[in-house]
Amino acid sequence: MCQLLGMNANTPTDIGFSFTGFRKRGGLTDHHEDGFGVAFFERTALGDIGLRQFHDDKPSHLSPVADLVNHYPIEAMNVIAHIRKATTGGHGLANIHPFVREVWGEQWAFAHNGQMSADFINRLHRLNANGNAQYYQPVGDTDSELVFCYLLNRLKSTFKHRPDDTRLFAFLIAQCRYLSVGGLFNCLISNGDWHLAYAGSLLFYLTRKAPFGEARLADDDLSINFKDVTSATDCVTIITTIPLTNNEQWQQLAVNECLIFRQGRMVHQDLPSKKTYLSIDDGITLARQVGASV
Amino acid sequence: MCQLLGMNANTPTDIGFSFTGFRKRGGLTDHHEDGFGVAFFERTALGDIGLRQFHDDKPSHLSPVADLVNHYPIEAMNVIAHIRKATTGGHGLANIHPFVREVWGEQWAFAHNGQMSADFINRLHRLNANGNAQYYQPVGDTDSELVFCYLLNRLKSTFKHRPDDTRLFAFLIAQCRYLSVGGLFNCLISNGDWHLAYAGSLLFYLTRKAPFGEARLADDDLSINFKDVTSATDCVTIITTIPLTNNEQWQQLAVNECLIFRQGRMVHQDLPSKKTYLSIDDGITLARQVGASV
Repeated sequence: MCQLLGMNANTPTDIGFSFTGFRKRGGLTDHHEDGFGVAFFERTALGDIGLRQFHDDKPSHLSPVADLVNHYPIEAMNVIAHIRKATTGGHGLANIHPFVREVWGEQWAFAHNGQMSADFINRLHRLNANGNAQYYQPVGDTDSELVFCYLLNRLKSTFKHRPDDTRLFAFLIAQCRYLSVGGLFNCLISNGDWHLAYAGSLLFYLTRKAPFGEARLADDDLSINFKDVTSATDCVTIITTIPLTNNEQWQQLAVNECLIFRQGRMVHQDLPSKKTYLSIDDGITLARQVGASV
Repeated sequence: MCQLLGMNANTPTDIGFSFTGFRKRGGLTDHHEDGFGVAFFERTALGDIGLRQFHDDKPSHLSPVADLVNHYPIEAMNVIAHIRKATTGGHGLANIHPFVREVWGEQWAFAHNGQMSADFINRLHRLNANGNAQYYQPVGDTDSELVFCYLLNRLKSTFKHRPDDTRLFAFLIAQCRYLSVGGLFNCLISNGDWHLAYAGSLLFYLTRKAPFGEARLADDDLSINFKDVTSATDCVTIITTIPLTNNEQWQQLAVNECLIFRQGRMVHQDLPSKKTYLSIDDGITLARQVGASV
């Protein structure tokens, strides 16, 4: 399957260290070489949130766009990145995650790994053909963008105006649960303020805060002491398909667990009654079984 | 005012030469230094259109993102670029053109130069507050994105499904005429296939086709002989606020003229009954009078 990388922070944060390891999985330490994308939510001095995106159809370990992302220190509050191994959908830019849509005057970014079932994809296409794609329609031909548009059409059909966070999060979690019945569904969604992580199989997170220590990448010979580059109040959560460092305690999400982060901290947890944690090998096997690339 | 650069071609084309001159106006040969953005519509081997965007809040003549755009030869069918001198709206990324929204499963990019009147801006805000922002709402606080969302809300409210091109173009041209009554309104819009250019004051275009010759930039000591980099059937139109080369015959659009290009050629022209052509100096003076930055 593809791989996901997310960040949610309470202060503008450069994701360069994590991205250095992550991009290597796009063709070097792993074979997700059908392009990559990254969405940065940045905050101005006045507190306004802006989004910028980078997409490339080249493997991320070779891409000049990934070089730029690595060498141009962009300090963001939220990040969603994705490296792609194409399964459903062709190789063009229109199929590169993260996908972005404007919702009630906010940019929402979405990235998925997994594979929806053929039956479920057909069901969503039938819904679209029957007038349920009033607000959003996919541009490319991935199952992932189809699912994102479905989710947002349901959202805007259900709420004429933006609901409060409690109702919004309950709705999103219920929808993610529903989608995970229709296939293998791991996803990250952010509006630049909150960051939702849903685990259908494999997803890990790590919250870095004081006292900061050293971190060593699993995919590259690189380490950093976060004590040297942070202040005492910084709080930064990194979310990823497979842990990026090999000397820190990553927390695994249970299958069908949903977490929501804000200001670097978990603010909402939805745990299934039966908690299952897949080993990385089992997660990869599961992805293979449903036709997702691993 | 800000400046616009557009391209529409019948073959994947690198806009690097034009962009080299254009980006210099973002802080070097001119003072549009509040960021820049560029949207590339690229075509896969199978004919699918994908969009990638680059935005930066740094002046384009200094921006590392603009360096990447210059040095990474992206071959596109359509391009919309914009360098910004902020007038309405703050300095953040959310206010950097081009703005993009998905319409009926197509990505549409839009860039504006000019300045809408305060009365007109208030009118659009009232419309939004009264439920006329069902499909699209601005993320930033520019008059430009407000106008783009207004246009798209009108479009989707008027047509439940995508109309044929004749009806679509007639609608867009009528809306641009209406918008130009509400302020100074030059714009470029593209869905990756067609490219619309509307002149409220200053806009020029140039169609390059065989026999190709030499072109010299106005803003840099650089020339190119297009004979060396093209094939006989290539046809490429460049659209810009102020001509980018000083040895070619640029065609000026009359005030309130609208042109639509496809495959590098003009396919639709809507000329006002009274044709007025502003000199560049008069265009700049007009922009100053309505509070647009020049």
